[in-house]
Parts: sequence; structure tokens; C-alpha cells
Amino acid sequence: MDRKAERTVGYSIEGVEGLPEVEPGDDLAALIAGAVELADGDIVVVTSKIVSKAEGRIIEADDREAAILAETVRVVATRQHDGGVTRIVENRQGIIGAAAGVDASNAPDGTVLLLPVDPDASARALATGIRALTGAFIGVILSDTLGRPWREGQTDIAIGAAGVHVFDDLRGSTDASGKPLAVTMPCVADEIAGAAELVKGKSSGVPVAVVRGLAQYVGDLDLPGARSIQRPADRDLFRIGADEAYNEGYRDGYEEALAEEPPSVG
Amino acid sequence: MDRKAERTVGYSIEGVEGLPEVEPGDDLAALIAGAVELADGDIVVVTSKIVSKAEGRIIEADDREAAILAETVRVVATRQHDGGVTRIVENRQGIIGAAAGVDASNAPDGTVLLLPVDPDASARALATGIRALTGAFIGVILSDTLGRPWREGQTDIAIGAAGVHVFDDLRGSTDASGKPLAVTMPCVADEIAGAAELVKGKSSGVPVAVVRGLAQYVGDLDLPGARSIQRPADRDLFRIGADEAYNEGYRDGYEEALAEEPPSVG
Repeated sequence: MDRKAERTVGYSIEGVEGLPEVEPGDDLAALIAGAVELADGDIVVVTSKIVSKAEGRIIEADDREAAILAETVRVVATRQHDGGVTRIVENRQGIIGAAAGVDASNAPDGTVLLLPVDPDASARALATGIRALTGAFIGVILSDTLGRPWREGQTDIAIGAAGVHVFDDLRGSTDASGKPLAVTMPCVADEIAGAAELVKGKSSGVPVAVVRGLAQYVGDLDLPGARSIQRPADRDLFRIGADEAYNEGYRDGYEEALAEEPPSVG
Repeated sequence: MDRKAERTVGYSIEGVEGLPEVEPGDDLAALIAGAVELADGDIVVVTSKIVSKAEGRIIEADDREAAILAETVRVVATRQHDGGVTRIVENRQGIIGAAAGVDASNAPDGTVLLLPVDPDASARALATGIRALTGAFIGVILSDTLGRPWREGQTDIAIGAAGVHVFDDLRGSTDASGKPLAVTMPCVADEIAGAAELVKGKSSGVPVAVVRGLAQYVGDLDLPGARSIQRPADRDLFRIGADEAYNEGYRDGYEEALAEEPPSVG
């Protein structure tokens, strides 16, 4: 219809079906390159679980709690509730979330899946392998599913990235009316990971998606990875939970009052 | 190529170009329906700024700080830094973020844009209007750009929704191996808003995007809106900033120590 405006800005996401169940030692780059046609500018979003499986990050663990503690660098917040304890922690990969990335639901009974040791390095290895096999200038994002403060539910975010600009750095550019967009820096890697989750799903067995049409975010393999998305704790206003911070303050205030001279009575 | 697996799972997102600059009083449903072809199952993602403009949510404000305070229900965290003060607040719409949704960058000089009074109601009005004009069973998401704890940069999230399932409620379903996915409830509305940001961009003047191929998330107009994504503060482990919680605890602990009997010296 002529009255409709032309539509030229867009992209598409396709789930990659037909991948086999991934086993430790599998060449994931070869599996992906064999399962889907890839072209310059495509971004391959891979659920981190199958990377963990290919890398053999499966451990025997009758006690999931012990496995979580072993992966925890810092406890950020905990809360007791009817169903047990919610524990938000920073894990070895610097990611803050529940259960330290330890996943029992996608591993055989009596075992748990751990996150890749270095998700950015895993993404780089995958991107290198897929580029070599296909000749296509592609990017790779490793995704994981995490909850977040203030909002219910989970979204998929980027825990590893290679050959992708993780931010669309608009700082210094201008909006449509010419005013500077001083502080805007969209985290496109997280948005792409979330967009891919919408086709991958958790239960449908589609652990890889290909994003076509966002070639402007594909770049060199030495671009900063997803680790650069993590805000250092000392710059984070929510670096520990409200209850933990309150309790720490309470103890310090209590001790300070005891240490001071008793106030003179007027 | 025959060796490639068939690809049947996917969706696409297109930016709607050619919309005029939106003015107070404009019929946004008619503008959108006239600018793009819509079909059953499409989801229309609209940047909240143009909804604010159509609804006349523009106020004179020489003092942006005063406008922010007027929209603030609760201060969540503040920090002084070289460039001024970062203030994270809960606004009248229940959304936690910087600047209470007050936007000076997309409004004429001397004015600021406020968020729609009730973004879910705005989304419902838009969905009702677009459905009536096009006959297409579509959903509407209103998006805004927000920062988040722990991670740098911003993502677009859903601040209003109508005719869309905001969560893909997998609780009670099973993963590929048959185990229950007890706690997984992806917030698809936020993921769709972020996916749409990737085409809309901030500076390209494309404030509307159409998502095609996710019809499973389109539903009745009386589904819960984006407000249902907001976690009540009393259930949130990060309901106030770490510094604010520490200071509150310190004061309480200090006062408690003074109020108690001096400890006996053993």
C-alpha cells in the first residue's frame, strides 16, 4: 500500500534448531557452523549452558548449596523465606545473581553445571572458530538468565561477548533535535541477549539464535567483552543489600557510641 | 544448502519510519495505524516520549531539579560526584530510576517531558485505538530507557503494556530433560522493549517499532500491565541504597547503645 511509509530499518532473529545434545569436549563452533548459514554482520547468541557442557564444567554435587558457596566471591544479600534462603552473590565471573550461576536444572541428577571459567574467553574462542569455519565476520554473545532488583521475573543478559560492541556509545552525540545525549550508553549486548531469549526459550531446546541485521555492532575480536559491563562494587549504589548495609551500620554505630565518652548530662 | 538444519523459529523487528513530530493532542493510534501495516499477533513498541508529547505531558521548567523532586515519591539512593548528584528515585509511576522519568533532552528549551500519568492506561488506549482502526489483534508496549544496579549502561524496559503477556510464566513447566523449571519467569515485556530499542535508537528519530512473529505473547486488553513487573519495596532486597541503609542502621545502633544501661565492667 502506497500510503504506508517505507520500512527499511529492522532486523530478525532466528532460533537454530537441530543442534545435538552438547557433550563435554564437543567442538561447539563446528556444531553451530554446521547447523546454520552465517553471513557477515550476523551475531550468534549462545546460551551459556551449552558452552559449560562443551567445556566440561559439570561437577558431581549432591549438595547444590556447597557448590554455590564454592563459586561465591562475595555475598551481596540474603533473605530467609518460607521456601528457604534467597542468596544473591557475586560469583567468580563477577556476575551478581542468585545461585552464583550454578545450574542444577539442566544437568544430570547428582551433578550441577558451572559457568564457563572466563565467558569472554569462551566467546572469543567460539567467534574465532566460527569465523574460521565460515569465513563470515560474525560476533558472539554468551547469554544467561538472571533476576534483577526492583523488577519481577528474569531477563537474559550477556555474560560473555567477542567481536561485538557491547555498548552503543552515544555519549557526545546528539538527539533528533540536536541536543547532546550526554549520558546515554545503551547496553546493546544485554538487549541482544534478551531479544534472543524470546526465540530460544528455556524449554524448547533451542540454545542458539542468530541475529541478522545489526551488523553495526559487529567488530574486532579484541573489543572489550561482557566483563566491561560489570560495574565495580565501589561505584555501585546497591553493592550490598539494604538489610546487610543496615546491620553493618547498626553494629558500627553501636560500637562507636560505646567507645565515646558518655555524654555529659546538662 | 541441505546440510543446514531447517530454521522455523524466529521473529523480526522493524522500525516505523515517516512518523511526523508528535504534538500535544495528536491521535497517536491513528498516526501509527497510518504509518505501518499491522497484522494479528504484531506487538507495537512505542517510546514513551511520544506518548508523553501526545498527552501534553510537557511542563515549563527552568529548574529540572525541581521538576524531578515533584515527580519523586521516594528517594532510593543518592551520591555526590564531580559532575553533581546522582539521585535514584521511585517516581509516581512506581518506576525506580534516575531523574524520576523527567526528560529535558527531548523537549523544547525551558520545558521538560514527564512520563504518562498511567503508562498502562496509555498503552491500553493505544491498543484499543489501533485494534479498532486496523482490525488487527495487536499488543502495545510503552518503553523507556533506564539504568540498573550492578551493570553499566542502559536498556529499554516496558513501563506500560496492554494486550501483551508481560511474563512468560514457565513456573510449573519442565525443561528439555523433563525437570521442573520452578522459578523461571522471563519478563518478555522487558526483553521485547530492549529488542525494539536496537532499531529505534535514540537519535535516529524512529520512536515506534513493530515486532512480528511473537504472537504467542499477544492477548486480551485486560491482561496485567507493566505495573505488575514492579516488585513491592518490602519484598526487594535492594529497596534502598547501601549508603542510605548503612546510615540508617548507624543512627539506630548509636541511639540504641546510648539508651541502654552502660555495660557492667567485668
